[in-house]
Amino acid sequence: MIPATSILDSLSVKNKRLIARIISLIEAGDFSVMKIQRELFNKTGKAYKIGITGPPGAGKSTITNRLIKHLLSLSKTVAVIAVDPTSPFSGGALLGDRVRMNDIGISENIFIRSVATRGSLGGLSKKTIDIGDVFDAAGFDYLIFETVGVGQSELDIAKIADTTIVTLVPESGDSIQAMKAGLMEIADIFVLNKADRPGADRAMQSLKTTLELHKIPNGIWKPPVLQTIAVDNVGIVKLMDTITNHRNYCFANKICNNKRLEYFKERVLNIIETTLKKNITEKQSEIFNTAVKEGIENKISPYIIAERILMEYNG
Amino acid sequence: MIPATSILDSLSVKNKRLIARIISLIEAGDFSVMKIQRELFNKTGKAYKIGITGPPGAGKSTITNRLIKHLLSLSKTVAVIAVDPTSPFSGGALLGDRVRMNDIGISENIFIRSVATRGSLGGLSKKTIDIGDVFDAAGFDYLIFETVGVGQSELDIAKIADTTIVTLVPESGDSIQAMKAGLMEIADIFVLNKADRPGADRAMQSLKTTLELHKIPNGIWKPPVLQTIAVDNVGIVKLMDTITNHRNYCFANKICNNKRLEYFKERVLNIIETTLKKNITEKQSEIFNTAVKEGIENKISPYIIAERILMEYNG
Repeated sequence: MIPATSILDSLSVKNKRLIARIISLIEAGDFSVMKIQRELFNKTGKAYKIGITGPPGAGKSTITNRLIKHLLSLSKTVAVIAVDPTSPFSGGALLGDRVRMNDIGISENIFIRSVATRGSLGGLSKKTIDIGDVFDAAGFDYLIFETVGVGQSELDIAKIADTTIVTLVPESGDSIQAMKAGLMEIADIFVLNKADRPGADRAMQSLKTTLELHKIPNGIWKPPVLQTIAVDNVGIVKLMDTITNHRNYCFANKICNNKRLEYFKERVLNIIETTLKKNITEKQSEIFNTAVKEGIENKISPYIIAERILMEYNG
Repeated sequence: MIPATSILDSLSVKNKRLIARIISLIEAGDFSVMKIQRELFNKTGKAYKIGITGPPGAGKSTITNRLIKHLLSLSKTVAVIAVDPTSPFSGGALLGDRVRMNDIGISENIFIRSVATRGSLGGLSKKTIDIGDVFDAAGFDYLIFETVGVGQSELDIAKIADTTIVTLVPESGDSIQAMKAGLMEIADIFVLNKADRPGADRAMQSLKTTLELHKIPNGIWKPPVLQTIAVDNVGIVKLMDTITNHRNYCFANKICNNKRLEYFKERVLNIIETTLKKNITEKQSEIFNTAVKEGIENKISPYIIAERILMEYNG
């Protein structure tokens, strides 16, 4: 491995080989990349992060695809991190959606990467965030995080993204119902895609009614509901304009800055947590295993066992 | 509060008031209940735990309802923990499904409790597990964990449950596709509910094909695919028989025992983690906040900041 400093000097949007290499090392959990990761953070913070989430089949990939084309036409550079649904056990990723992205063609200003969610059981993995840092440090103007599916990952997306877009389709209706409350909390912008399909009017009405019930005070960003037909490129310019409006609002009101601070805190805490857990299970494995074995055999509460381990660990 | 020992002596299936009271204290995070929780663990381990999961609208509540009736007819006692989808931010729970359970009527041998998932962002909360312990210690024969929705909670369910049932409907098709891999790994039994609907044959075939692709070795439990029409009570006895078959297999092969040990380990680790995190953010809050603030201002990697905090904490 070349020294970290000289690597960082060569890190740029144009140097796709280097970006790909660093990402591969991060994905592989290669220890040698840690020094680079620690250094490159200093170059982050300039990329604007957009999250796109919603149920399967809502057209997230198509919308992402259209947004990319639009941003490229404005001479912007874009990196896409597509988080694929993965079995946490088998680790395989479904990459079908990516194929459709081929029609963007080869541009110097775009980098698309699929990542698996392995290791975090449905949420975004630590590696996904670390990969985002690489793109940010390389100088991409926009980072788009796209998650297929709903659940933990959409909540994580909302924490990372400066602007979170929730995509729905007229058919979503019933299955959306159950998660509506959660989606309301994370969406900065709602997109009703495939808006030419039957039921679109009713879905729009239902979304707007739910938003009304939320009673957002004046002066606070009220998530607009946009209609798109992404496959026909309808509504994409308006969507991008709305993202820009939200961006301006978000920084003017220090909301984005606070969000980034909160997320930084959470990352630090997660790293601390992982390190401590590793210390206890690996380095102190004998203490841990003995205590756990005794607990299960004698039906001692996990609370008591945890306390014992911590006492031995600190003592 | 009465002393823990005398409370534990009165804890039984029949004493619903006491059970309800302990659960309420656990839900409220009342510190006084901790002593009871620590003691009652000693009485756990006898209940058989069934997990029921699947997409919204698959009829999980109806299946649960029918299983309860069947178990009651066999003079068994049953506790149901229904985990409702919740906004992690607002904390409200959707309890609509529970209403349907009213037709079970009032039986001494059944206890149904809805819990919110608040605090764990989509997964099962620590409190849910603790409530399970209360039912187990009270002497219920069966514990049914029912999760509405898919995502983190279904993965958690599979860890807690001795037998995990994944329910699908013929219409699930497309939206199931995306998560099939994950469901394959957690299901001990597949139930295709509403099997009289169009597309049932195709859905059965699709499920079976996917299972074939998994190439499960001989001697290892191969998740059967059952058909039910729960609303008409069709297929429920067979489902219960299959659960019993799986139970016998699971203990004969020590799979359930190992699973319970692994889950105990995880619980201990989670408690340790929570305690350590609390120590760092609360007791050491000045060190933590100062380091994080410096990190975000000077764009220092969260890895470096985490290391600094840990050094100060240990030093």
